[in-house]
Amino acid sequence: MTYEQLTDIRIEQPDETIRACARSRWDHIAKPIDGMGEFEKLICRIAAVQGREVPQIDQKALIIMCADNGIVEEGVTQTGWEVTRDVATLMGQRKSSVGILTSGFPCEIFVYDVGIRADETPEGVIDKKICKGTANFLKQPAMTQQQCLEAIQTGIDAVSHCSKQEIGIIATGEMGIGNTTTSTAVLCALTGSEAKTYTGKGSGLTDEGLQRKIRVIDEGLKRYGFLPDMHITAKEAFAALQNLGGLDIAALTGVFIGGGIYHIPVVIDGLISGVAALVAKMLVPDCAFFMIPSHMGREKGMARIMEELSLKPVIHGDLALGEGSGAVMLFPLLDMAMHLYRQGTTFSSADIDAYERMEKR
Amino acid sequence: MTYEQLTDIRIEQPDETIRACARSRWDHIAKPIDGMGEFEKLICRIAAVQGREVPQIDQKALIIMCADNGIVEEGVTQTGWEVTRDVATLMGQRKSSVGILTSGFPCEIFVYDVGIRADETPEGVIDKKICKGTANFLKQPAMTQQQCLEAIQTGIDAVSHCSKQEIGIIATGEMGIGNTTTSTAVLCALTGSEAKTYTGKGSGLTDEGLQRKIRVIDEGLKRYGFLPDMHITAKEAFAALQNLGGLDIAALTGVFIGGGIYHIPVVIDGLISGVAALVAKMLVPDCAFFMIPSHMGREKGMARIMEELSLKPVIHGDLALGEGSGAVMLFPLLDMAMHLYRQGTTFSSADIDAYERMEKR
Repeated sequence: MTYEQLTDIRIEQPDETIRACARSRWDHIAKPIDGMGEFEKLICRIAAVQGREVPQIDQKALIIMCADNGIVEEGVTQTGWEVTRDVATLMGQRKSSVGILTSGFPCEIFVYDVGIRADETPEGVIDKKICKGTANFLKQPAMTQQQCLEAIQTGIDAVSHCSKQEIGIIATGEMGIGNTTTSTAVLCALTGSEAKTYTGKGSGLTDEGLQRKIRVIDEGLKRYGFLPDMHITAKEAFAALQNLGGLDIAALTGVFIGGGIYHIPVVIDGLISGVAALVAKMLVPDCAFFMIPSHMGREKGMARIMEELSLKPVIHGDLALGEGSGAVMLFPLLDMAMHLYRQGTTFSSADIDAYERMEKR
Repeated sequence: MTYEQLTDIRIEQPDETIRACARSRWDHIAKPIDGMGEFEKLICRIAAVQGREVPQIDQKALIIMCADNGIVEEGVTQTGWEVTRDVATLMGQRKSSVGILTSGFPCEIFVYDVGIRADETPEGVIDKKICKGTANFLKQPAMTQQQCLEAIQTGIDAVSHCSKQEIGIIATGEMGIGNTTTSTAVLCALTGSEAKTYTGKGSGLTDEGLQRKIRVIDEGLKRYGFLPDMHITAKEAFAALQNLGGLDIAALTGVFIGGGIYHIPVVIDGLISGVAALVAKMLVPDCAFFMIPSHMGREKGMARIMEELSLKPVIHGDLALGEGSGAVMLFPLLDMAMHLYRQGTTFSSADIDAYERMEKR
């Protein structure tokens, strides 16, 4: 795929008629108007994305993109890069945190190695290694243009694979030591912000470590010409991803674009996934409708990302685990809402007068 | 039970040693420190309440208190009081919204008639009718002292019943046309606020209806001597409940007190349940630790209630369904967190260096 092919991708828009039908179906269920709040909107959105009034989300999947980051050399993390491989190994055995979190319900987990810094891909992990981690962005661009495009293509292909398996909804996750640094750098570039605005302590930095992380990100922004208050085009968004991002972020960008192409709703997790969603929206604007928010993570940039995407996450759990853990926590909530949407008692069947909608939504 | 016996109730405090053990157990699981955020705190709290490091929440229950409100005479609702009975009838058949929402996992539902305005209690509903609905509080106190105490006792007994069945966690719900009016009135009384601060449109009022509801609540506050900025004692909190509240709110107050007595965590739902929790805390302060937040409902008073109780709800879904629907939505999230807490891979078993806690919680 070339950059031109990427930005030429056209997305067939979701079905607004279906969304209106879904809206009306909710209003006929014996409950107060809009009683299920944001969950009603989410189900309507998923219905429109899938193009069916009663969407199918029984088949669920989580796509986890794993990759290492050269910027770890600069001391921006508490642990070393080898933890990426160690946790990916656990993921392949479904023994990592998200594997255990989802043990209570069916959810396929597809773990991809798109750039773990190790010769071998762990067992149970899909080998799509593009290179053994990115370069240190203070020394050279994190990726070449070709590597970045290849990672995006891997994400799109991952959704194609899910589509063939009739997966109804996809959660996004990642593992990569250093990726709160890369994703914060990309977020700052995209929003014309200084590093201090959105840099957090990741998985546990000291105050001193935080200051170092802020300096590293600011230096990176300067190096690649991202100035405060700059207006960003699609081309510059791609440059931010390529120069400052990671293979995991790029691959997740592809997953969000793939959601649009294959009409599968894709659930945003935390900061890294959220930044990938934002990049996807800037490259292929029409894929934004296919994104589903899940939680407002602990990282400082999350609120800004949700604002840019006009999305309201329903879980406010101060989560900072990664791996797609917050995204999969949305699944049982959607299942509950779907139960009611599908089987809810209607006012007419219960012989109760329906509530009237007093104002326009 | 007399009022003196009520305020004499002593609660055995939860086990702080257990809480510390639970805290440490979380830190040994291979994930970033505090990665599960609020969910780690909730599990630690539940462990302390139950007095065991690995709490048991497999057996779940929802207690729904149903009652009618005389204030409906004043035109503060969109629908008539008969909807209380109609929905309670559906609840008895597990066909109301919350019955269907919870159809995917085991959850006992105990529906109580504490004051439905009908001669008969619907099938499948537990008959603890105290009277056929409260009085119109603009004409006379909503309840007599004895009725109010009896409702509280019913709530305590409901928890005792759950305790005998080894229920590990209880969600609270209600059904009663007019109960956003009664609970907002009690909230305003407890917090020394004017009606306009916290009155919302309930299950769909027009703007004119909202103004009428505000006038009714303000008149009620004045009638029983609740002035803005007044400091409220336990005795006055009881008076607010008795004069302005409902049998459902009083019974739920008993459920929260029962949680403290029987050491069972009780999950707060929306406004009505939240007001009951606040009254319970004012009457028997030590029962507050046993309360678990679930969602930040749409009603305006919720944020104030959560602030007064120092609780942070994890679901922000703009829910306004009632029946305990938001409270039961917390259950699958707690189950997921419990999976990880119970079976999570530890750093030592995975041979990964643990993250260090860099700051005091």
